[in-house]
Amino acid sequence: MRRIDKTRTIRAAHGSTLSAKSWLTEAPLRMLMNNLDPDVAERPEELVVYGGIGRAARDWDSYDRIVAALRRLEDDQTLLVQSGKPVGVFRTHRDAPRVLIANSNLVPHWANWEHFSELDKKGLMMYGQMTAGSWIYIGSQGIVQGTYETFVEMGRRHYEGSLKGRWILTAGLGGMGGAQTLAATMAGASCLAIECRQSSIDFRLRTGYVDVCAKDLDEALAILEDCKRTGKALSVALRGNAAEVLPELLKRGVKPDAVTDQTSAHDPVNGYLPLGWTVEEWESKRASDPKAVAEAAKDSMAVHVKAMLEFHKQGIPTFDYGNNIRQVAFDRGVTDAFAFPGFVPAYIRPLFCRGVGPFRWAALSGDPEDIYKTDQKVKELIPDDKHLHNWLDMARERIHFQGLPARICWVGLGDRDRLGRAFNQMVASGELKAPIVIGRDHLDSGSVSSPNRETEAMQDGSDAVSDWPLLNALLNTASGATWVSLHHGGGVGMGFSQHSGMVIVCDGTAEADARLARVLWNDPGTGVMRHADAGYDIAIDCARTRGLDLPGITD
Amino acid sequence: MRRIDKTRTIRAAHGSTLSAKSWLTEAPLRMLMNNLDPDVAERPEELVVYGGIGRAARDWDSYDRIVAALRRLEDDQTLLVQSGKPVGVFRTHRDAPRVLIANSNLVPHWANWEHFSELDKKGLMMYGQMTAGSWIYIGSQGIVQGTYETFVEMGRRHYEGSLKGRWILTAGLGGMGGAQTLAATMAGASCLAIECRQSSIDFRLRTGYVDVCAKDLDEALAILEDCKRTGKALSVALRGNAAEVLPELLKRGVKPDAVTDQTSAHDPVNGYLPLGWTVEEWESKRASDPKAVAEAAKDSMAVHVKAMLEFHKQGIPTFDYGNNIRQVAFDRGVTDAFAFPGFVPAYIRPLFCRGVGPFRWAALSGDPEDIYKTDQKVKELIPDDKHLHNWLDMARERIHFQGLPARICWVGLGDRDRLGRAFNQMVASGELKAPIVIGRDHLDSGSVSSPNRETEAMQDGSDAVSDWPLLNALLNTASGATWVSLHHGGGVGMGFSQHSGMVIVCDGTAEADARLARVLWNDPGTGVMRHADAGYDIAIDCARTRGLDLPGITD
Ligand SMILES: NC(=O)c1ccc[n+]([C@@H]2O[C@H](COP(=O)([O-])OP(=O)(O)OC[C@H]3O[C@@H](n4cnc5c(N)ncnc54)[C@H](O)[C@@H]3O)[C@@H](O)[C@H]2O)c1
Ligand SMILES: NC(=O)c1ccc[n+]([C@@H]2O[C@H](COP(=O)([O-])OP(=O)(O)OC[C@H]3O[C@@H](n4cnc5c(N)ncnc54)[C@H](O)[C@@H]3O)[C@@H](O)[C@H]2O)c1
Repeated sequence: MRRIDKTRTIRAAHGSTLSAKSWLTEAPLRMLMNNLDPDVAERPEELVVYGGIGRAARDWDSYDRIVAALRRLEDDQTLLVQSGKPVGVFRTHRDAPRVLIANSNLVPHWANWEHFSELDKKGLMMYGQMTAGSWIYIGSQGIVQGTYETFVEMGRRHYEGSLKGRWILTAGLGGMGGAQTLAATMAGASCLAIECRQSSIDFRLRTGYVDVCAKDLDEALAILEDCKRTGKALSVALRGNAAEVLPELLKRGVKPDAVTDQTSAHDPVNGYLPLGWTVEEWESKRASDPKAVAEAAKDSMAVHVKAMLEFHKQGIPTFDYGNNIRQVAFDRGVTDAFAFPGFVPAYIRPLFCRGVGPFRWAALSGDPEDIYKTDQKVKELIPDDKHLHNWLDMARERIHFQGLPARICWVGLGDRDRLGRAFNQMVASGELKAPIVIGRDHLDSGSVSSPNRETEAMQDGSDAVSDWPLLNALLNTASGATWVSLHHGGGVGMGFSQHSGMVIVCDGTAEADARLARVLWNDPGTGVMRHADAGYDIAIDCARTRGLDLPGITD
Repeated sequence: MRRIDKTRTIRAAHGSTLSAKSWLTEAPLRMLMNNLDPDVAERPEELVVYGGIGRAARDWDSYDRIVAALRRLEDDQTLLVQSGKPVGVFRTHRDAPRVLIANSNLVPHWANWEHFSELDKKGLMMYGQMTAGSWIYIGSQGIVQGTYETFVEMGRRHYEGSLKGRWILTAGLGGMGGAQTLAATMAGASCLAIECRQSSIDFRLRTGYVDVCAKDLDEALAILEDCKRTGKALSVALRGNAAEVLPELLKRGVKPDAVTDQTSAHDPVNGYLPLGWTVEEWESKRASDPKAVAEAAKDSMAVHVKAMLEFHKQGIPTFDYGNNIRQVAFDRGVTDAFAFPGFVPAYIRPLFCRGVGPFRWAALSGDPEDIYKTDQKVKELIPDDKHLHNWLDMARERIHFQGLPARICWVGLGDRDRLGRAFNQMVASGELKAPIVIGRDHLDSGSVSSPNRETEAMQDGSDAVSDWPLLNALLNTASGATWVSLHHGGGVGMGFSQHSGMVIVCDGTAEADARLARVLWNDPGTGVMRHADAGYDIAIDCARTRGLDLPGITD
């Protein structure tokens, strides 16, 4: 098993020349490659895209075999991928998905990091995270709007809609976490982000996601003080360990206006630097003594969460940003770890009730103009949503594309299918230079069960019921998505979530139009269904208004 | 939530008049109803089909709504069923499944009986077992051939191919377990089956699965002694508690020729009578104090397994028959509980390597003649398999149909699709009076991950990897099965397995022919794929011979 190969540099082809037999297979091929683009992936030489050890393929041989299989795949065949390894090609039909993926799934009794790591080491599995192993990661932009919407909503709830002169304290500038600094300034707030790895800070500086890197805590606080006075929004990175800096801030009596965290706490071996360790120590021990690393990391997370609880007690809005850090601290004896909420029940669930979530698309042409044209189309088709228009303008101005140009817009049931079909029309008419792929994060309205994150505190108590994401994956398969995936683990780690992914190609054909009409309606439809079933009024209203067919609810 | 309704008697319609809009929806309708036929289900008034609390629908309202939805469903719509409740109807297409089902699935960290029971009580879930919640249970016949094949194989390994004058000790004459006695006599062996419920014994006597019910242990042993002398194969039921009778047999020095068990040990609250309790006590306590029942049952199972271990030590072939009893005993401190093997690695895996498993079909006409004609067709198409021909003859002679006439044959990759297409042709030509549905148990070659049963002791250590059944369900959906299901729990209980079901209709159309060709090839194909990936030579050979397309293996 060859997992590391520093000689390889992968980039997706641009333009309209196919190396696969059709756009339905060229699309997963380019998106797989795009996931490993050095401008997109965190550690492409290891096939790691983001989120700790979230991989696009199990190993380099598997990668090569996936590429070969996609290049030869016919339009009535389906490739099966098991934890990043291509395992079979079967005859299906034109309206079936071209690729079906299952990553990191374990029978529940064995669904823990210990057993997973054993299998991972043996080469029998890989960690798929969410969009890493399902080939629809589009770099940090993917998370920017979600984070932006969260921060804006937080401002609405706690600061009368304005974050001017406010600052957010967080940690972790990795694949996802790196979006926090940009999202904060877009939302009008300053931000202090603690990150232990200089290379991660440098990457964020280079791509414009972080404004400045402070030499030390004193300098960082001085900058933030200045911003408070002038009302300017600046993002400040500080090299350090969150488990050390947060207690220090408490000691100094510093009061941020909001507190959260995006270290990779979901993965105690690979994701969280233990207190007092250097990054170098950490990296070498991860290989030589992973157990010791996990133990030390968990202790440090308990310290980190205790500090967050202190801020929470002071009345400062504090929330878990979906990395399972409360659970780890809780298991470590911090009995009130869940005193502060997760970001979903706090800010996101009302959106999920209307099927609104991280809808996204990428231009297979590689041409930014194709995305700008779709931006314009979105404004045309959703003319009244000022917030959305603002987002599109700021995104165009401030977000650097990574790899294939892409855009993300949180839109819901009734909008997604209209946008998808309009994009397909633009491909058909030649307005766009090549097809568009449309997908979404697994963190979406109908596609995930994750009791510490997306389905935390459901009002009927159904947090842990995972029938829903399985039905979502089956329905997307039945509706004709181009590729569909089922994952376990994702952002909150082994044992804590099950979720499904979906991507569909707009190749400009009438067949694609019919598929888009089904898939982009049904997919958010399952989200509205799931929340309506749990009794949320917003979802029940949405189902009725939009004409969903939910036995026992809309009939 | 109305779970019990003694006024209802459900039987599937026979004949060729539709009450749904086509055979694609009439078929799931009849098979759902057939699962609840009083001749098929264990406790139909509670919607319980078999295996402890394996239900066909969550409650009676859900049942009625499923029926209503199936009756109005169009041939381009798909009904979603979440743990026995219909939750949505979505537009798909003609080649997509008409029903997609997810039952009893829980995010792993919460996948235990305690959490499930809480949700079950709240009306948010039901236990789907394997074929109960996926509407392809066909009564005890379903399990007879599997058990027969297992006993025959056991005889081959340990008794030079003949079980004449031998007897098998077991317990449990429930939905599945009731097949043991008949399978034993078909295989030429006598059998002593301990069963604590007189009603279960009576049901098996009535349907011809048990030959005699002994008054007490002395009488039972006398009958078996007699059989040993004469070489006659007789099945004997004895009312009693296995945890009491097995130690008593050890004390008396009685030596059976094989030992196994099919009490519902997978479900400590509902499935196993604690030692020293009456059935009445058990039933009332299950409602009033389920925790106490579970504790007492687990203690008794430890006693039971210890007795099985004693027989094993005496060199008597002893095996777990897939009810998870070793795990319960192990968790109760019986550290050598896994000293005797499960039946799959012991006897079944070589069959799985060739995609051979519990293939089955039912005649929607309700006419036994339709099944006899298909029996004949099987003999014609598989002319050289004497063992299979014997089975068909004995089955015809000795198995009473329950509900819709049905047949089961363990056949594999390359045979299933030929049979299915031939049956479809027989429907098309009018040789059969109505369509046939074809399905299988979830206990099959490619459809289950269950480290204590179907995937115990896989040679590469991948026992717990559940990507495989998920891919199986996705591929069956993509291939055009008529209904597809994903379950958790099943025969080994919460936390211990994930598995998928598939059923497809032969309605005599050309469209069905194309679907049958894909589904009945791909479905066993995933089983061969899964075992080839694990390194089994038989599977790799089979994949090569049959022309499966497995990247890295057959290319
Ligand atoms: N909220 C969401 O929408 C969402 C979505 C996806 C992922 N997540 C979760 O957020 C977390 C971060 O994701 P990511 O993709 O950015 O992961 P990542 O592994 O790419 O980044 C984590 C970063 O944290 C840094 N770090 C680790 N320990 C530290 C410490 N003690 N102090 C300071 N910095 C430390 C690492 O150097 C790394 O740069 C994950 O747990 C992920 O699952 C959340
Ligand atoms: N091996 C296989 O192929 C296979 C397939 C399906 C199910 N199973 C497993 O086998 C078990 C039996 O399945 P089933 O459908 O027959 O279940 P069931 O609940 O219908 O029957 C269990 C029977 O055991 C009896 N029983 C319970 N405790 C007893 C005791 N202490 N002594 C004597 N009798 C006792 C009950 O009265 C009942 O009749 C389940 O755990 C099931 O999951 C095995």
